[in-house]
Amino acid sequence: MSEQFPWVEGGVVAAQGFKASGEHLGIRKNRSKRDTALIVSDVPCAAACCYTRNLVQGAPLAVTRANVADGHARAIICNSGNANTCNANGVEIAQGMCALVERHTGVPAGDVIVASTGVIGQEMTLEPFENGMAALAAALRPEGGHDAAEAIMTTDTVAKEVAVRFTLDGREGRLGGISKGSGMIHPNMATMLCFLTTDAAIAPACLQQALDGVVKDTFNMLSIDGDTSTNDMVSVLANGAAGNAEITGPGADYDTFAQALYQVCAKLCRIMAKDGEGATKLLTCTVTGAADTGAAKLVAKSVICSSLLKAAIFGADANWGRVLCAIGYSGAQLDVSRIDVQFVSRAGIIPVCTAGSGIPFDEAAAKRVLSEDEIDVSVQLNSGKASSVAWGCDLTYDYVKINGDYRT
Amino acid sequence: MSEQFPWVEGGVVAAQGFKASGEHLGIRKNRSKRDTALIVSDVPCAAACCYTRNLVQGAPLAVTRANVADGHARAIICNSGNANTCNANGVEIAQGMCALVERHTGVPAGDVIVASTGVIGQEMTLEPFENGMAALAAALRPEGGHDAAEAIMTTDTVAKEVAVRFTLDGREGRLGGISKGSGMIHPNMATMLCFLTTDAAIAPACLQQALDGVVKDTFNMLSIDGDTSTNDMVSVLANGAAGNAEITGPGADYDTFAQALYQVCAKLCRIMAKDGEGATKLLTCTVTGAADTGAAKLVAKSVICSSLLKAAIFGADANWGRVLCAIGYSGAQLDVSRIDVQFVSRAGIIPVCTAGSGIPFDEAAAKRVLSEDEIDVSVQLNSGKASSVAWGCDLTYDYVKINGDYRT
Repeated sequence: MSEQFPWVEGGVVAAQGFKASGEHLGIRKNRSKRDTALIVSDVPCAAACCYTRNLVQGAPLAVTRANVADGHARAIICNSGNANTCNANGVEIAQGMCALVERHTGVPAGDVIVASTGVIGQEMTLEPFENGMAALAAALRPEGGHDAAEAIMTTDTVAKEVAVRFTLDGREGRLGGISKGSGMIHPNMATMLCFLTTDAAIAPACLQQALDGVVKDTFNMLSIDGDTSTNDMVSVLANGAAGNAEITGPGADYDTFAQALYQVCAKLCRIMAKDGEGATKLLTCTVTGAADTGAAKLVAKSVICSSLLKAAIFGADANWGRVLCAIGYSGAQLDVSRIDVQFVSRAGIIPVCTAGSGIPFDEAAAKRVLSEDEIDVSVQLNSGKASSVAWGCDLTYDYVKINGDYRT
Repeated sequence: MSEQFPWVEGGVVAAQGFKASGEHLGIRKNRSKRDTALIVSDVPCAAACCYTRNLVQGAPLAVTRANVADGHARAIICNSGNANTCNANGVEIAQGMCALVERHTGVPAGDVIVASTGVIGQEMTLEPFENGMAALAAALRPEGGHDAAEAIMTTDTVAKEVAVRFTLDGREGRLGGISKGSGMIHPNMATMLCFLTTDAAIAPACLQQALDGVVKDTFNMLSIDGDTSTNDMVSVLANGAAGNAEITGPGADYDTFAQALYQVCAKLCRIMAKDGEGATKLLTCTVTGAADTGAAKLVAKSVICSSLLKAAIFGADANWGRVLCAIGYSGAQLDVSRIDVQFVSRAGIIPVCTAGSGIPFDEAAAKRVLSEDEIDVSVQLNSGKASSVAWGCDLTYDYVKINGDYRT
């Protein structure tokens, strides 16, 4: 799908009727790092979430599940620096965070989406929230999206926020979001934290359906390191401030909304993959000519997950045999003798494999193509019409460095 | 299973009636590196093989499959430096290698197991074999096992050979082998090259059954980097020189043989994992208390495959949350609230998680335990009686370095 909607500023508060803030509450030792984000809608919202499928789940996810079971929510609270996972009193802490949001914003605790990200299995107390929630609530403003984006960062090196505008039912609507995620990211789950807001009016069931569909093609096609986090979720709040007739089922408005949601989420995937822990390059795999979408996805994910290929891409080494190898163990049924592969970047296109066998190529030209910071591995299976794309990054010394001593 | 049989010298030629050699034939540029191994039995052998399940398979595997279809073989030829995979004329080359073995040793081409390992998709010619096979055959000797072990090394830093002796039917038998494998190693396949020989007399069907069973618990529980190679296989030749009554079905002799085969293969797994590309540490995961063996294996493999845990082990960081995370996404059904985890090494035992939640531990003591070069992550699921072990290694700067520019 193309980028058909215009980008706008504002990220998670681009849509009308949302305010955000991000402050240092003391979960992190570094006083210059914001560690808690708050996002609040002026009015109740339709809400939808997708959660990690890891059996070990952070306590905040259980609390959020309960709070959005009725399809509605109005606020989001998220801290970084501690995942509140594998803690005996985790649910109590997460509920306490929601209660503090209620006390300082008036949003009922049962309408709060709560999330935590950071180290797993480290004791967490309510104290920083008790001391800091008043200031966090007081800082809420329509321009606070960037502060919130900063507050949820862990090993991320850039704040991640995008938004688009679109027309629904003759009214201008906006949809934007922030996300964090740099490590412990792997497909088949809602694999990071992403908070989206929109002023479109859309029924909760439609919102959930749109989110489920888009997550399959975006965040579930993103892998930094093959590790599926315990805490991750994607949530979207829709407050209806755009004034369009509420979307309650299939139709042109639903399609427009789903397309805008895809555009925002796909862009966040690119940004997250490129900012993967230690990454120097965005690595995408575009698969075309697959017999079905399932096969296309298996192949695309397998290629961007290969440690060997990721290391080769770091070294700008056109070791395409590793692409074939990853296709072969992807689990997709396919005819190896039909596979064509080429490396693509701003610097050019290098075909390296035709009909499953190597072809001669200019090593110096390949080096130039692979020295760019955005590399696509283009795989043509020549077996059908389905296609897919997956996002990843290279494997570098810095990934090892960052994760060799993350806690200290 | 314990190490009940005495270790003996000789590796792949420890068993009576086998000769081996390893020479530089010119597949590799470095003239001081042996690049081709030859192993020959004095008489025809029962033969069994397991192959990679990657759909992209090296041409030698197709030729070997055909040659051992009758359950018999007598020689093994294996080169390193070129995988002979994704080459248009690959089968022709592999058949040519077998024909040259026949010409210079008298072993029929149809009784030759052929293997190649190295870069995928690089053109390969018969020329080095045409020029060098006579010398390789002339070098065959009962003490040539180490030369053969060296000749199949790629990024391996140590030659890998072990052997045991045992008693069958009142006769002393021996079983030994060599293996190579340092990268592109991942469970659920015959995931490297391993050539085993024995002088036990055993029928081909029993030999295949024993190999299939042992591979499931050994090489399929070994992962260096999550990449499943295109070329890998395990083969065993049994020439009957020990003089025992041929093993043709279940019984004490079959059990003894299978146990010896397990001991040799498990030891080779440890050696390979510890010599994983860039590895500084052997990382094992021992799972006990699982509801069934399938669950135990899923958990053990998931833990040793986690890039995040592997990096933490490199940094001697007791980041046990990553263990819980990997257990949670393993695919095994389990009760998270029953899980106990401890780190174990020569330096001590550090319990870090009880009943799914963190417990306080001494960070300095944990650092000492994790600074050893063999670390076991011990996971007690408290849900049954099944157990499993998996072998892996840490993720280091050198893994990235080795694979960032492997071809040049």
